[in-house]
Amino acid sequence: MKSMASSAPQRIAAIVGVGPKLGRSIARKFVHEGYTVAILARDLGRLSKFADEIAREEKAQVFAIRIDCSESRSVREAFEGVLSLGFVEVLVYNAYQQPPNWHPTNFTDIRLDSFEKSLTVSSVGAFHCAQQVLPGMVERGRGTILFTGCSGSLKGIAGRSELCCGKFALRALSQCLSMEFQPHGIHIAHVIIDGVIGPPRGGQSSSSASQRTTTLGTTPIGVDVIMDPDAVAQTYWQLHVQDRSAWTQEIDLRPSNPPKFC
Amino acid sequence: MKSMASSAPQRIAAIVGVGPKLGRSIARKFVHEGYTVAILARDLGRLSKFADEIAREEKAQVFAIRIDCSESRSVREAFEGVLSLGFVEVLVYNAYQQPPNWHPTNFTDIRLDSFEKSLTVSSVGAFHCAQQVLPGMVERGRGTILFTGCSGSLKGIAGRSELCCGKFALRALSQCLSMEFQPHGIHIAHVIIDGVIGPPRGGQSSSSASQRTTTLGTTPIGVDVIMDPDAVAQTYWQLHVQDRSAWTQEIDLRPSNPPKFC
Amino acid sequence: MKSMASSAPQRIAAIVGVGPKLGRSIARKFVHEGYTVAILARDLGRLSKFADEIAREEKAQVFAIRIDCSESRSVREAFEGVLSLGFVEVLVYNAYQQPPNWHPTNFTDIRLDSFEKSLTVSSVGAFHCAQQVLPGMVERGRGTILFTGCSGSLKGIAGRSELCCGKFALRALSQCLSMEFQPHGIHIAHVIIDGVIGPPRGGQSSSSASQRTTTLGTTPIGVDVIMDPDAVAQTYWQLHVQDRSAWTQEIDLRPSNPPKFC
Amino acid sequence: MKSMASSAPQRIAAIVGVGPKLGRSIARKFVHEGYTVAILARDLGRLSKFADEIAREEKAQVFAIRIDCSESRSVREAFEGVLSLGFVEVLVYNAYQQPPNWHPTNFTDIRLDSFEKSLTVSSVGAFHCAQQVLPGMVERGRGTILFTGCSGSLKGIAGRSELCCGKFALRALSQCLSMEFQPHGIHIAHVIIDGVIGPPRGGQSSSSASQRTTTLGTTPIGVDVIMDPDAVAQTYWQLHVQDRSAWTQEIDLRPSNPPKFC
Repeated sequence: MKSMASSAPQRIAAIVGVGPKLGRSIARKFVHEGYTVAILARDLGRLSKFADEIAREEKAQVFAIRIDCSESRSVREAFEGVLSLGFVEVLVYNAYQQPPNWHPTNFTDIRLDSFEKSLTVSSVGAFHCAQQVLPGMVERGRGTILFTGCSGSLKGIAGRSELCCGKFALRALSQCLSMEFQPHGIHIAHVIIDGVIGPPRGGQSSSSASQRTTTLGTTPIGVDVIMDPDAVAQTYWQLHVQDRSAWTQEIDLRPSNPPKFC
Repeated sequence: MKSMASSAPQRIAAIVGVGPKLGRSIARKFVHEGYTVAILARDLGRLSKFADEIAREEKAQVFAIRIDCSESRSVREAFEGVLSLGFVEVLVYNAYQQPPNWHPTNFTDIRLDSFEKSLTVSSVGAFHCAQQVLPGMVERGRGTILFTGCSGSLKGIAGRSELCCGKFALRALSQCLSMEFQPHGIHIAHVIIDGVIGPPRGGQSSSSASQRTTTLGTTPIGVDVIMDPDAVAQTYWQLHVQDRSAWTQEIDLRPSNPPKFC
Repeated sequence: MKSMASSAPQRIAAIVGVGPKLGRSIARKFVHEGYTVAILARDLGRLSKFADEIAREEKAQVFAIRIDCSESRSVREAFEGVLSLGFVEVLVYNAYQQPPNWHPTNFTDIRLDSFEKSLTVSSVGAFHCAQQVLPGMVERGRGTILFTGCSGSLKGIAGRSELCCGKFALRALSQCLSMEFQPHGIHIAHVIIDGVIGPPRGGQSSSSASQRTTTLGTTPIGVDVIMDPDAVAQTYWQLHVQDRSAWTQEIDLRPSNPPKFC
Repeated sequence: MKSMASSAPQRIAAIVGVGPKLGRSIARKFVHEGYTVAILARDLGRLSKFADEIAREEKAQVFAIRIDCSESRSVREAFEGVLSLGFVEVLVYNAYQQPPNWHPTNFTDIRLDSFEKSLTVSSVGAFHCAQQVLPGMVERGRGTILFTGCSGSLKGIAGRSELCCGKFALRALSQCLSMEFQPHGIHIAHVIIDGVIGPPRGGQSSSSASQRTTTLGTTPIGVDVIMDPDAVAQTYWQLHVQDRSAWTQEIDLRPSNPPKFC
């Protein structure tokens, strides 16, 4: 665990499943908005680099904590670390098992342990992480849990049962939890990312509407085939700050000009 | 048509279906963010009062234009007025036919003309309004159309076929339009409001997250049974300013603590 | 109206929207199973040919009755004819407005009256026909209403708003009616036909399972790209004879080997 | 493994997850239609009683084979037995982990191992069983796999994450498999049972329509609150014998007069 904090931390956001794209952008956004952020993933070396980078940019503390979401002991230990920082007000669960290759796999070639691991990372890990933070949220009557889904959360895809089964299960979890915990003041939402996220464009994703609409007019058709992770992170933030009289349970996100597949 | 403007208006938002709750809050939000807003509904007297009120509060111009969404001629004439103000960058379609009474109606007691009118207001009106503004949006390669749905947009309800058929059709329209027009840079989204909207709480729905989370801790469980229209309007605004690399097509909104029905 | 009956008819099935494919196959199946069948469509000449043909094949009475589902008066008059035959135990609603051409239409080129008519044929006509037969079904505590949907009933398609809005609305109607009338013993189901129906293969679609499985082994992959209307009609029949303790509200049907579209 | 067969078996149906209600009725139906049936469950004693009973009633062979769907070795061994009988043409997967009690469980009280086991039985077991039979089906270009879902397959329920996550995952599996294997002639369907199944009513669930419609008229409203497993099994059979030009991927079943819950 890498700490750059000194004074007592109060408002903690834990981002589980942080790679170079979405997780990093979400972490940066919450740091930027004043949260003490813990980022968690399996590769501590890479994670520490992200933490340093965000900490430097935002002049704030960022904690890098190793987690293996397929190991219950690792989840427990990681959250001992997270919870020691203070009240975890926000949990973002982003982790899933990357398929071994980009192409679909013949169903009969999928190894049982690979299928099980994918299900475990997508859904059992989410279950377990949620259990670590919910008691504190219930006690304080507030908190936000955001789960990351994909197009495979809604519809099965040939050759993608590993991904889809885990993501369907995660969606179920988000619905069950919102039914149970929203009356306790805990906002639980499922974000369906229906597209490919690229590197941040380095733009001002949080730019004001007037800037945006000015530049929109000059954007040539054909751009926006891939998604800017900073733009996606902006929606995660907006979900978190929604007023509790009007909460979203499920939202989709896709590029304006998605590629056509056959 | 009531005008309080003098200089040339540029950024127009048209809000169709404006009553004392959601429509009014959306209008106020877009005025507050710098848009020239036209509000449209059947009752011009009430509408003018809303326009005056918002114009006074926000020190801005608001146009009240009569529309009967069940009459094609009225739609055309109303949008001649709207389009004369300038480029309509935003259309919010909020109109639907109020059921004659609160209780479900026996199916065999529903009058054919009542069913037809409900379908017309919910979906034909939306079709027609969208046709008025889309050519301009396509020409400029930008624009936002937001359609308002409800829980009856997703699932049939006994005794509510008038509402549900129209709202299902509206959801279809929003999906067809987004498939066709998002590659042209036009954002089309469907907002499912799954709850009862009350009067604005007069609070700062656009308050910063830090204020909000501070006060959340003291909110007693049991509140947030009804929805604050200002909070809902905030989500409409956020949809409008989403980056075009990560657009939402469908989002739901409900109170954290919805009433239980049998 | 063309009558080939002499004795008192008792078990009536009315099939609305009968062309050379699905409607005709459903009609033939119900005739084959002993029902007195009325077939209804706009083109009485073609309809009468179908009625003659089925009557000859099945040695039974078939009634051809003209209906224009976009005209309320035509619906009422047609059902006066149908109801004069006796208790209408089964209604199949199959009618929809054929799009003017096979290719998707630019949204801004769709005429308002064309959109309205499509919505009317798909959903208002279904509403009106259901109203004609439901009082008799409620009185007797039994009956079946089957609505025909398509892939456009579930998801919007670019350039197909006329079809999709009507078919979404029809799906809503089927759900509302089943919520209200299933406790009265009336079975209401929605059949989603997700594929292209071809001409009947002239095979024994109702062949026993043993015959079927014997021949299956020799069927080359690549067949079954289009759907056999007799096979589809078989599922309509099975829905009708489902035991009331286990009723289907929605079912999909597609060929085993659907064509791939881009 | 208990064998009552002597001659060479050819057409095998394997029913996994057989208790006194649905599994038993499905087994009996397939035996009645001429299949050699293997029934599989954890409790071999009870299973053998069912096998004896059906074998006696139908004068046919029924195999009882122990399986623990949460143990990969048990699944493999059980299917060695099943596959030794001949080509498995039909697989019905019915198994799920009964929740420890009828009432919903507080999320934070659910044990991690209990959640994992439920997910394993509902979905990993289904994955594994499907892998055992699919190579043979692909080789012969035919076969049917039917998965049993429930209302928790479509929508999360407060306090039911164990059930819902597993059942959502199972639904994903059924969709992925149908996308991949239907073009190979293998029919894969998901049956959503949205209601409580009771004991068989002992009626003729396969009675002809004329008998059924005669008796329907006298059925008092208020019956059909629970589902007859023989009636449900009838739909499983009908799915199996569907023509391959018109296959169902998903179907729901519920009693005509379901109980109202708050």
